Amino acid sequence: MDKREQIYEGKAKIVYATEDPDYCIVRYKDDATAFNGLKKGTIAGKGAVNNRVTNHLMHLLESRGIPTHYVRELDDRETLVKRVRIIPLEVIVRNLAAGSMAKRLGLEEGLELKKPVLEFSYKNDELGDPMVNEDHILALAFATEKELEIIKAYALRIDEILTAYLAEAGIRLVDFKLEFGKTAGGTLVLADEISPDTCRFWDADTNEKLDKDRFRRDLGQVEGAYREILRRLLDV
Amino acid sequence: MDKREQIYEGKAKIVYATEDPDYCIVRYKDDATAFNGLKKGTIAGKGAVNNRVTNHLMHLLESRGIPTHYVRELDDRETLVKRVRIIPLEVIVRNLAAGSMAKRLGLEEGLELKKPVLEFSYKNDELGDPMVNEDHILALAFATEKELEIIKAYALRIDEILTAYLAEAGIRLVDFKLEFGKTAGGTLVLADEISPDTCRFWDADTNEKLDKDRFRRDLGQVEGAYREILRRLLDV
Repeated sequence: MDKREQIYEGKAKIVYATEDPDYCIVRYKDDATAFNGLKKGTIAGKGAVNNRVTNHLMHLLESRGIPTHYVRELDDRETLVKRVRIIPLEVIVRNLAAGSMAKRLGLEEGLELKKPVLEFSYKNDELGDPMVNEDHILALAFATEKELEIIKAYALRIDEILTAYLAEAGIRLVDFKLEFGKTAGGTLVLADEISPDTCRFWDADTNEKLDKDRFRRDLGQVEGAYREILRRLLDV
Repeated sequence: MDKREQIYEGKAKIVYATEDPDYCIVRYKDDATAFNGLKKGTIAGKGAVNNRVTNHLMHLLESRGIPTHYVRELDDRETLVKRVRIIPLEVIVRNLAAGSMAKRLGLEEGLELKKPVLEFSYKNDELGDPMVNEDHILALAFATEKELEIIKAYALRIDEILTAYLAEAGIRLVDFKLEFGKTAGGTLVLADEISPDTCRFWDADTNEKLDKDRFRRDLGQVEGAYREILRRLLDV
């Protein structure tokens, strides 16, 4: 299938229509932003890594029973996916305290949580993606009760699958962000990406950060960390 | 019982020990603060109104099966209560969007919610009482699963009881904040206060604000609004 008109350009990806209204093509960019767009930069090769890491993990999840939007990789930076209506929630799964959670709640980064923590943010750039709880989601109809139940179950199952798989690659899955969408046929599927842009990956032995925090916090070796994640996944 | 040493002084109340370790005395002050202490002032007569409004509503709730810390009113500003270990959560119940919820989520103040919304904040002045969800509460052991279930059930039942009762007084219950504690015997009870400091009360006909928003937003007639709430409750 060929790219037609651009339907969306975000911080890290462009989405194009195709000749089939049920499918679109995602193109991953090297552009990086952080802190709600306040910090901008480029991470050379990021687009290709995120495309391949996402597809690798989506393929894994599909094989374990999680429906996703993934159809097939077209080239280094482009992937054919099912076209979905995105549910306007960022679904964050946390195994260790880090990032905004550690800061907001005064916790040491790396604190082990007694159980995985789900957080939801209302996807709205103008409002800064404010945190919401399940009551907000239902009272404001961001998702239906049934959709929310499925999203929660998938998110926790994805955490189990990815945590075990990444452990084999010597990677600790600290936290990650998911987005879900509904296909034209009404099926709720995992959408968006799963990459060092959207996950915190720490080296299992050294706790070295192998993700976008290297960019956010000016830790250097940003490109190398992204490449290292892809390398380890392909070696499992 | 007589007041012994002061055990706590907050923004609006002082708590004293008594000769019985299972009881303490609360004294309501006229001091008012808003915006996490950034705005300070005095509302003449507020302490007496809040003491009497709280006791009136706690008495009502006890009669409808909600256990509270209330024992008996000692005078205009002082009440004998059971001594409790406060659970470090602010429990907010919302029937209409207002205040921080309206601002954070870009909603018009007064928007009717499809169902009552519960919000929780972790009581911590240094962190600015950050919003938490049920996973945070359980993973960080702010409350046990059983305590949380009871708190949620009580909060929704309190909303039903107060909404119906206040309607008879021509008052719309927009939202309110509760705190819970555990007695020496391990019983979970409603604690703290229920007053124009901790609730949004709107006139049922005109939507005129009859609560602390008059102080927060410099609307004038602050003392009159507090007195009006007490007057209406005593007239039901």
